[in-house]
Order: sequence, then structure tokens, then C-alpha cells
Amino acid sequence: MKIILDAMGGDHAPAAAIHAAVWAARDFKLTVQLVGQPEAIKAELAKHDTTGLDLPLVPASEVIEMHEHPATAVKNKKDASMVVAMNLLKTGQGDAVISAGNSGGVLAAALFGLGRIKGIKRPALSVIFPNDSAQGYCLLLDVGANTDVRPEYLLQFALMGHHYASQVLNIPNPRIGLLSTGEEEDKGSMLVQEVTPLLKASQLNFIGNVEGKDVPAGLADVVVTDGFTGNIFIKGAEGVASMIVKALEREIRARPLAMAGALLVRPAFRALKAKLDYREYGGGPLLGVNGVVIIAHGRSDAYAIRNAIRVAQQAAEKNIVGVIERGLSEPAGQPIHEVVGH
Amino acid sequence: MKIILDAMGGDHAPAAAIHAAVWAARDFKLTVQLVGQPEAIKAELAKHDTTGLDLPLVPASEVIEMHEHPATAVKNKKDASMVVAMNLLKTGQGDAVISAGNSGGVLAAALFGLGRIKGIKRPALSVIFPNDSAQGYCLLLDVGANTDVRPEYLLQFALMGHHYASQVLNIPNPRIGLLSTGEEEDKGSMLVQEVTPLLKASQLNFIGNVEGKDVPAGLADVVVTDGFTGNIFIKGAEGVASMIVKALEREIRARPLAMAGALLVRPAFRALKAKLDYREYGGGPLLGVNGVVIIAHGRSDAYAIRNAIRVAQQAAEKNIVGVIERGLSEPAGQPIHEVVGH
Repeated sequence: MKIILDAMGGDHAPAAAIHAAVWAARDFKLTVQLVGQPEAIKAELAKHDTTGLDLPLVPASEVIEMHEHPATAVKNKKDASMVVAMNLLKTGQGDAVISAGNSGGVLAAALFGLGRIKGIKRPALSVIFPNDSAQGYCLLLDVGANTDVRPEYLLQFALMGHHYASQVLNIPNPRIGLLSTGEEEDKGSMLVQEVTPLLKASQLNFIGNVEGKDVPAGLADVVVTDGFTGNIFIKGAEGVASMIVKALEREIRARPLAMAGALLVRPAFRALKAKLDYREYGGGPLLGVNGVVIIAHGRSDAYAIRNAIRVAQQAAEKNIVGVIERGLSEPAGQPIHEVVGH
Repeated sequence: MKIILDAMGGDHAPAAAIHAAVWAARDFKLTVQLVGQPEAIKAELAKHDTTGLDLPLVPASEVIEMHEHPATAVKNKKDASMVVAMNLLKTGQGDAVISAGNSGGVLAAALFGLGRIKGIKRPALSVIFPNDSAQGYCLLLDVGANTDVRPEYLLQFALMGHHYASQVLNIPNPRIGLLSTGEEEDKGSMLVQEVTPLLKASQLNFIGNVEGKDVPAGLADVVVTDGFTGNIFIKGAEGVASMIVKALEREIRARPLAMAGALLVRPAFRALKAKLDYREYGGGPLLGVNGVVIIAHGRSDAYAIRNAIRVAQQAAEKNIVGVIERGLSEPAGQPIHEVVGH
């Protein structure tokens, strides 16, 4: 398998990307194509032992910065690393693209470069969100690709989420929840009211509305929402977790005995941290575009990008694009052939 | 001051409400009117020492349950405790209403019973949200009164939040943030795009968009959003905090040494818990209705309701209704007389 890595994307590029590529190429036996400025990439590669690894360099002279306006930047910078990466994918020179760069830019580059899967109205950015279930996480989408949506987009997000969860995450018959302000069917925005009958009429394992607290509690395997709410939800969760950790550290430091106790508790803290660590999954698939594209967190380190490469490999192996395409072409009202009803 | 307490509202009613009333009447030297079913209230009162306290009973034969449809229930149950409570407030027989009952019901009862402040298009439910700032919290609104809003509603939420934060919470010139998906002005939904110029044109201390992570980080003193996003945000935060605590406890229990350490860390945990405890503020003001109404969490215990009574007392003392009314009648574009520009 040939992975295409935007070597210039992310807060710690290109160092983190190159380190990740070396790591992933070794661990997962992959070819990782490094797209970006040759001098910068070569300088980073020189810091690693790359014996026996296949890490071809694909030159791209430009970089789309984090602060740039996504669509404008993608249109103007034809030789930007993420644009070149999408072209490689489009022309069959690789199986999946990973970028930790400007996520709006990656979205725009994917839309311009790859287009959408036939029949998909809008792509959705998904993330793995930790929860209290046996598997320990759910899939949450959209988290930012579409700030304003229509009911039929949300239905498609649910469908794509179903396929990704069942095929790539190996969750059989995933429970689909619609993020809302109450569990009752009449709770929620007009949008929620409009999408509910569509989800009920589908063959998806739709469990109804889920509230904000139900997501970490693990009530749904796939949580569907618009990109505005989803983005605020995941960033809020990140902020709350960070506030809790900081506040706890402050309270512990203020107490000498607690400081001693904290040393003993540390392994438990580490285990918790690993559970909540976004880096374990590295990145979220941009579902609905015509190719496997994984968007990693802007502040990804090498470990996060290494794991994003693994996610990309799995999605490509399972041919998620083909699965979604087939799912859409099933007879109306029966889109999910694996589901036997509920 | 005369507080009106819906004695039948909340998961632990009437026990928690009556306990809270006794507690608050003693601590804050208040008259607390207990509205609800006389037998149930008397039975609870008998469990407490009420010597010297002024706790008049106002009979109300019906109760609006948590699962009932708010507007329907309020229309059909004319003698429901929360409906009777609003009538007392409306007819000047008390200074503020507190209810931990069906929050949609309290909203409907307040709208029908009290109406809106002249000029206010929609009331907003606000909460105190913990953050990492010096004061330790911000005001977040709307968290559920309006799932679908218009830009002018959000402008009014900002205005009401400004007055509540500056007058009742004593935050001078509070920083107003608009919850969105990115800090840049062009980020966010169409709604966010439309409300931004209105907020910029106001005399409010508008600091622009804030992201989900910026709320717990303490970047804004008043966070403005629609009731759909706000509700999902606070319930998500609650769920994440609860997931973290549960996961940490599990990890600690799995390790004998960590168990020992946890004993030493316990005081620090307690301090953290107190900081995050919604019960400290007890309830959020329903801003924009023509009277002081505090909505407490459905699962409030006596301590939470006691504190909600204190919040109600402060809001009534500061005459928040009058302050909002005056704020609206200021010359257009100069609604905030306290603010000298920024």
C-alpha cells in the first residue's frame, strides 16, 4: 500500500510528519510518499535511520498556512503540498492522503481535487470520540466540514458513519444517534425535527436523539450532527478535559501530602490520559470525497500522524469509498444491506 | 425579601426543595413561600426545625412532571405548582421564583404568566459555567430556551448577558464572546456571520468569536449562542467531566498503590469537584421574562436549590429586570451606558 503524506501540514511540520512517516513505514510495512519542499524534507529525513524503508519524495514548492483562507489558498497555490497530494491520489499514484494542515484547506483541496462520491451531497469530517462503552469510542460527524446543513445531508452523514463504523471500526450494526437537546422525539431544532423521519425511514440502526451527555456516556456508536454543533462539541470537550487536568494539578500542587499521593496515582493518570488521547486515532476520515483522506489535528506530533497513517491504511484496505458508493446505490429505503432490521 | 419556591419541582421534590427552603430561610434571612401540595409539604416540613422561620405554604394541587410536554401541561394544569408560583410573582406577592421542575414547563409558565420584558424578542436560559479565569466562571446563554434563533435574538442575549454579568455577577465590562467554529470573523454558521456585525455595532465589549475550547479556558465572561448549541455544549461538558472522573476511578481501583495514593490526593479531588459543581450556583436565570425566574437543574439536591435561592435573591436585589428594561431603552447603538468603549 502506498500512503501519501502531506509533509508540510501541521504545527510541527515537517519534523513530525517525517518522523511519523519513518515510524509508520517501518511498523506497518508501507510505502509513504512525502509531499513537500525537498530541502526541508531531506533535512528531516537525514535525522532518521531509513534503511530498507520506501519513502519517496514528491516535490511541492508551496505550503498552505494555518491562517490562510482555505478555498482561496487552494485555488492560488497550485503547487501546495496538500494540493499535490490530492492529485497523486486522484491519478492513482497512492491509496490515501493524510494531512495535519489547515483542515479547511484539506477539505477544499479534496473537493477540488477528488470531488465527491457520486450521490453524496456534502462530505463530512468525522472523529473518533472517547466514551464509556466497551469499545471505548464512537464516531462523531460532522465536526466542521459543513456549518450549515440540510436534513438530507445529515441522513447521508448517518449512512457514511454507519459504513465507516461497521466496515473500518468493526462495530456490527452500529447504533446511530442524532445529537439533540433531549431524548424525546419532539426535542431539538427544526433541523432535528426534519431529519428524524428520514432516519427512521432508513434501514439504519437509528436509536433516536442523544443528548450532549449521552455521547461520552457511550449511548451511540455513531453520533450525527451538523459541522457547527459537532465542532463546538469536540472543542468544548477538549477544553473541559484540559481545564479539569489543570485544575486538579493546581489543587494537588497546593497540598504537600497530595503531591506525595499523586506520585502513586500517576500510572492511573497515565492510563486515563491514553484513553482520552486524540493521538491514539491520529485523525478523522473526511467521508464522502472520492478517495481516502484523513485529516489529522493541527497540533499532531509524530505519534499522532503515525496513527493517522494506520487509520488511512485501514480505510483504504476496507475500500471505504467503494462501500459508501455501493451503500448509496442500494434500493431506496433499504440502503444498508448488512442490517436485518431492529 | 420574599422568595417563591416551586416545592414540587425536580427529581428530589418535595424533600430537597423543603430542606433547601429551611436552609436558605435561615442562612439568608428570607421569607420562602412553598408552593405545592399541602400534605406533601407539611410532611417534609415536619422533618426540620423551622423555629423562627417564615415559610408560608401556598397550595397548588397539580404537578407538572418531567416527561410532560411543557406548553400543553402548563395550559392544562392551571393549578400546577410552577403556574401558581408565576402568578404569585406576577401579582407582586413575591420577588423571585425558583423551580427545579421540567425546565420547558418553567419557561412556558413564565412566558404565559409573566410575559417578556418589553422589547425582548425571546427569553434566554443562562448558566454559570466553570472556567480557568480568575473569577472561575462565565455566563453562558442560551442553553435551551430557543433551539432556533435569529441574529437579533442573539444580540439581545448578549445584551442581557452583559447586564447580568456586570450587575449581578459583578464583572465590570464583561467580555462578550460569540460561540463559533473558529476565532476568525469568517468562521462559523450563517447565523454567526449575520450576528457578528450587530455585535460589533453595539457598545458591548464584544471580543469576537470564541471556540468550544475557549469557554473553559476563560476567554470570555459572557458566551452567547443559540439554545440548541448551548444545551449540547453544557450537557457535553457535564458528560465529559463525568466520564473522566469515572475512568480515573476505574484506573485507580485497578492499582493497589494508586488506591493508597488516592487517599492522599482526595482533598485535591474534593477541591476540584467543588469548582466544577453546578450546585454551587444552583440555577441559571431565565433572562428576558418579566420577573426574576431561576431554573435549577432537575436533579438538584437541597444544597443546589439553597444556592439557587441565593442567586434569585441577588438577581432580585439588583433588579435585573429593570436593568435589562433600561438597557433596551437606551439610544440605539448606545445600549450600554456603563461601557466607555474599547
